[in-house]
Amino acid sequence: MERDSVVNPYEVKGNIDYEAVAKRFGVNLIDEKFKERIRGLAGGDLHFMIRRGIYYAQRDMGWLLDEYEKGNKFYLYTGIAPSGAMTLGHLIPFQLTRWLQEKFDAEVYIQIPDEEKFLAKKKGLTLEKAHELSYDDAANIIAMGFDKRKTKIFLDTEYAKTLYKNAVRVSRGITFSMIKDAFGFTNEDNIGRIFYTSMQAVPAFLMSVEKGKNVPCLIPLAIDQDVHFRIARDSIAKLGYYKPASIQSKFLPALSGKPKMSASESSDTIYLEDDEETVRKKVYKAFTGQQPTAELQREHGGNPDICTVCQYYRFFFEPDDKKLKDIFDAERSGSLLAGEHKKDLTARINKYLKEQREKKEKALRVMDDFMVRD
Amino acid sequence: MERDSVVNPYEVKGNIDYEAVAKRFGVNLIDEKFKERIRGLAGGDLHFMIRRGIYYAQRDMGWLLDEYEKGNKFYLYTGIAPSGAMTLGHLIPFQLTRWLQEKFDAEVYIQIPDEEKFLAKKKGLTLEKAHELSYDDAANIIAMGFDKRKTKIFLDTEYAKTLYKNAVRVSRGITFSMIKDAFGFTNEDNIGRIFYTSMQAVPAFLMSVEKGKNVPCLIPLAIDQDVHFRIARDSIAKLGYYKPASIQSKFLPALSGKPKMSASESSDTIYLEDDEETVRKKVYKAFTGQQPTAELQREHGGNPDICTVCQYYRFFFEPDDKKLKDIFDAERSGSLLAGEHKKDLTARINKYLKEQREKKEKALRVMDDFMVRD
Repeated sequence: MERDSVVNPYEVKGNIDYEAVAKRFGVNLIDEKFKERIRGLAGGDLHFMIRRGIYYAQRDMGWLLDEYEKGNKFYLYTGIAPSGAMTLGHLIPFQLTRWLQEKFDAEVYIQIPDEEKFLAKKKGLTLEKAHELSYDDAANIIAMGFDKRKTKIFLDTEYAKTLYKNAVRVSRGITFSMIKDAFGFTNEDNIGRIFYTSMQAVPAFLMSVEKGKNVPCLIPLAIDQDVHFRIARDSIAKLGYYKPASIQSKFLPALSGKPKMSASESSDTIYLEDDEETVRKKVYKAFTGQQPTAELQREHGGNPDICTVCQYYRFFFEPDDKKLKDIFDAERSGSLLAGEHKKDLTARINKYLKEQREKKEKALRVMDDFMVRD
Repeated sequence: MERDSVVNPYEVKGNIDYEAVAKRFGVNLIDEKFKERIRGLAGGDLHFMIRRGIYYAQRDMGWLLDEYEKGNKFYLYTGIAPSGAMTLGHLIPFQLTRWLQEKFDAEVYIQIPDEEKFLAKKKGLTLEKAHELSYDDAANIIAMGFDKRKTKIFLDTEYAKTLYKNAVRVSRGITFSMIKDAFGFTNEDNIGRIFYTSMQAVPAFLMSVEKGKNVPCLIPLAIDQDVHFRIARDSIAKLGYYKPASIQSKFLPALSGKPKMSASESSDTIYLEDDEETVRKKVYKAFTGQQPTAELQREHGGNPDICTVCQYYRFFFEPDDKKLKDIFDAERSGSLLAGEHKKDLTARINKYLKEQREKKEKALRVMDDFMVRD
């Protein structure tokens, strides 16, 4: 199965064997010992996404934590390429980043590359529209509770004086050969898209440039984004900066059960702006893998590992491990039928989205505390 | 011969048949009728570089002059990629641009792409060194007499907020296939270098972006730079802007008689900073193609078309056509021997360089009137 999967920023396809992908990308699986190390340094708490293996792999994070223990603090870098309304899946890197900021008192750089999906020729996306979406995304990100004294958010087109010069420096060590297969590019791809990965690499060493001394960087990201930093790290090192460390997540499954929720397939995805009725309809159609009839389900039970509803609780809506276990057990035993199960999840999602939208309204009033521009 | 010549921004090689290159690049030769049209619109004057066919070809300049006659004024765009000390050859586009500014009351954009030669991995050139050279180049350019009210000079790394966004837009219509052979690139070239042509394309439509309406643009440039605009023009048009017009020059020959003076072969080149003795030595060794002895030269004469000394008068140091004819005739008849010929040219060059350096000193004090930054 693994041999057929494609996992890069522009395409995720096939049944993903996450362990095999980690091996292919050269990242290390996060084992229990490593989790406990993070927990210890985070003051005894561990984010449920790490506990549950949603963040399941890392590169150089052991080194980063060694440095942290020596008193060499790290900063965090993550981002989102605006392409349409934000989905729940988009929030995963920001959730962990916010938690890490709090636990490790870390500064955060958030890049909003408003050119990326335009260069990838996403249908109907103008640069102006991407700009507008960027500010909407920024408001949603701020709403998640980042510390305004320690968080900088920037759009590539608005921060290009800072970014381009450093992108030039890092691009000098990256050939077209090095990126072609990794991104699935051909000679018919446009040269802006070919260059773009250099822009995404910059925030991974930008604080070192700014401070005039090396600062470790940790990048929480979904595994499909790993390629950017896998490719840039040697070039970053040649410039004399630390290679960035990273922590990789799996994808929030689509409601249909496909491995990755896609922002472009609207029925398969929960948008932050979906109204209650829309959420209800989408969840109602979600894949659970339950038996064809209530009788059979009560008799044989279901499989929470393939049940989208269970997975949504696991990824997002039930941070309490004990309660999650109850939900999984009920699914497995057949005592929880799809209708009730979906009704509960719908209520949870709608509550979450309502709160997120309220926080976003407030965030709109403090945007200037976060946005940086040249 | 033509089939062996290479003429692109990164390599000029072989015996250049300029007419064949014009045909290959799809530019039109400038004939006498076209010269007279320029002269008429310029108020009866015609720059000696156009008169003598040093600027020998153009693309869309007829259209540009049509627009000018309708009252639709054009702006000028040229530039220089800093790679080392400036040479006489570097001044050719600026000489014509300055003259066109005066005669057509045109605004001028001058791009100094301080990343270009760094991305091309010119030996020993850091981005910091390129930055320093850029300001030296800017001073030399200002010294040539540009109108401070109508001239903007910018470095790519300092103007990237303005340039990058537009480079992204134009790059979207340029594939690697389109540029690969034209620039002599391979998959082993770095992605910054591959993207760079987009940055060079931007000033060709930037004024239209800024004014929110189309403004014709004329680019004086050496023929090796033509490829940038040949490739970008369709993408520029797709964005809704006028395709840029251009006027192409031949290369100032090297002192050895090679077709192009190269900034990287120091003995073959006159730098603006060369002192009197250095100029004397370089000119003394210059190729004239004269007969092996004074007697033979007096008897058979020489060929001014291959004589570097004659060509330096033609390209630069004798704007008066009558006087130039006298020099050429003397070379042809054998009455002018190499020693005297070179002594005269040395004096002319040293006088020119001394004045240029004096004007450059003054230019250093008015840099801020010309430089624009984000």
